[in-house]
Amino acid sequence: MNKMKVNLDRKIGASYEIHIGEKILDRMGLILVKNNWAERYIIVTDTHIDALHGERVETALKKTGLRVDRITVPPGEAAKEMRTVLTVVEKLIALGADRSTALIALGGGVIGDLTGFTASIFMRGIPVIQVPTTLLSQVDSSIGGKTGVDTDAGKNLLGTFHQPKEVFIDLSFLQTLPEEQFRSGLAEVIKYGIIEAPDLLDTIEAAAAAGGLRESAFIEKIVTTACWIKKGIVELDERDQGLRRILNFGHTVGHAVEAASAYSLSHGEAVAIGMVAAAIFSEQLHYLPADDRRRIVSVIRAVGLPDRIPGNLDLGEIGSRIARDKKKRGETVHFVLLKRLGVPIVNGGIPEKMIKITLEGLHT
Amino acid sequence: MNKMKVNLDRKIGASYEIHIGEKILDRMGLILVKNNWAERYIIVTDTHIDALHGERVETALKKTGLRVDRITVPPGEAAKEMRTVLTVVEKLIALGADRSTALIALGGGVIGDLTGFTASIFMRGIPVIQVPTTLLSQVDSSIGGKTGVDTDAGKNLLGTFHQPKEVFIDLSFLQTLPEEQFRSGLAEVIKYGIIEAPDLLDTIEAAAAAGGLRESAFIEKIVTTACWIKKGIVELDERDQGLRRILNFGHTVGHAVEAASAYSLSHGEAVAIGMVAAAIFSEQLHYLPADDRRRIVSVIRAVGLPDRIPGNLDLGEIGSRIARDKKKRGETVHFVLLKRLGVPIVNGGIPEKMIKITLEGLHT
Repeated sequence: MNKMKVNLDRKIGASYEIHIGEKILDRMGLILVKNNWAERYIIVTDTHIDALHGERVETALKKTGLRVDRITVPPGEAAKEMRTVLTVVEKLIALGADRSTALIALGGGVIGDLTGFTASIFMRGIPVIQVPTTLLSQVDSSIGGKTGVDTDAGKNLLGTFHQPKEVFIDLSFLQTLPEEQFRSGLAEVIKYGIIEAPDLLDTIEAAAAAGGLRESAFIEKIVTTACWIKKGIVELDERDQGLRRILNFGHTVGHAVEAASAYSLSHGEAVAIGMVAAAIFSEQLHYLPADDRRRIVSVIRAVGLPDRIPGNLDLGEIGSRIARDKKKRGETVHFVLLKRLGVPIVNGGIPEKMIKITLEGLHT
Repeated sequence: MNKMKVNLDRKIGASYEIHIGEKILDRMGLILVKNNWAERYIIVTDTHIDALHGERVETALKKTGLRVDRITVPPGEAAKEMRTVLTVVEKLIALGADRSTALIALGGGVIGDLTGFTASIFMRGIPVIQVPTTLLSQVDSSIGGKTGVDTDAGKNLLGTFHQPKEVFIDLSFLQTLPEEQFRSGLAEVIKYGIIEAPDLLDTIEAAAAAGGLRESAFIEKIVTTACWIKKGIVELDERDQGLRRILNFGHTVGHAVEAASAYSLSHGEAVAIGMVAAAIFSEQLHYLPADDRRRIVSVIRAVGLPDRIPGNLDLGEIGSRIARDKKKRGETVHFVLLKRLGVPIVNGGIPEKMIKITLEGLHT
């Protein structure tokens, strides 16, 4: 038997810049012109975001001489599936897109994931620029290159790692963001504080006490800090093979609660509840001081996020979803716990009885 | 505006081995056990290959203690589309596949492209092992990581670069390969000879003269040489950004002829005709000596491949497909020509009139 080696070990340049600021659309155009990622750009957005910002973004980019078109898809998580990808691809072809085209994802997490995925498979991959418009996508999904669509068998079951060429975080988009979606994003910001930067919790509590959660200076501070933490973790574990799992703090119970609520709870609300549960597990396993657990609950309450499981949700369903989630990942240890604020640990071995009692205790 | 950089520049280890030999299934199992790419393996093949080889491959792999399952899809190019990917994904989920699963692509180019693509997007990417069963896929598509599916708007319009973890080229599969498919693969082998290794043309002509085109020693020689050439080109240009285009020698006219025949011509037959056309262009543009052009035609004839365009094909359609192909790629220079045997050059500027006259001259 002959053997030969295909030598592809090499350094790849996949680094990219995250730009954060108020009203940065004009500078976005200039930066794209300068970096010349593509000969033309196609904005992918949903009809809801399009009505609010589509025209304005397209016009701002065109002012710098860029060739820009716009494609819309229906809003909401239901659109995050392969049929929508194929529809976007049809529209790309109709516009004459080719390998010298780049996509601009303008929207929240669904648009970011869907557009990133489409870009990663269109003609074996074209560049994508992320322009997140919600707090949640600004501090989480726009950074790190995870893309995906849902199938009947699971969320994000099909996807890729496709890093954006740039991320433009324009904080002025948040002015039109509904209160509930803003709070949903705050839950992820609180998560970063809990796992990595306890100071951030002080900042949030102070702003909440002063009624300043929607003030520009505060928002710029928390988004910048959150992006800094996320990027640091992604740099160490781009492909989600270990460290990146700490970003799932609160998400094991959170996902189960979110699904059990049939998505009537927002992602952030569900994660807030999940973080409280994770704090209780951590305390009961004698990792986390009771004061730290109380601190977590109080920050969550301060911003108006729930710290209890709504009474109408079925605890049995939540429990079995948690068990299924653990089983699906085979041997993978998956619960993220805390040793103290700022010090997460990954631990899969939570006794089922402890889960059950904790969920019961959190049920209103 | 704040700015921060996500630093992902790094060395990645994507090298892999190509194993070539007769009856290497047992050793394939042992190598997979040793390299431990996954906790379990799922073979993806078509019903035609499955009937010929499926059971045998599965049994051979299981003998080494591997956990192995098998999924089949319909045979033929028509199956190379997103619906088939989704069907495979459903079957993977039904089998309980997860991120610790690897796929084994057992079949020709369609299976390799389809399985590679599915592996690249399933749960954001799982390993794929390529086990090509046709001469064409052994010397071409199994190496280099190109994956894809067709859509109504074009072949391989959706796809990824997803390098296999290993390629196992078992030459004994070729014993059951129909004559026409064998010849189709020979066209690509001749292409490698023309663009990179004129000696290979001697080897092929000698074997053809001696009636030994299907003899083991000859096949081992040409497959090994072809893989060596392909791997060398892929190493220098993994993502098809320049050099790799020389592999398209004969393919611009070839694809147009193949499509105009409604795929009644095999890929290899169409490429053979395309290579003759490219040789004529090269000669007329005063690059290629007439002797070299005659040599190319004579090797193609020697193995029983066509060197003329069948009379029932519409030259107008072929011409407009060539023009569209060039236009679709925008500014990209795309015709691969020859300076002499073994020395390809990329040149987009072929006068339309020369294309027309050449096609007419080749029409029977």
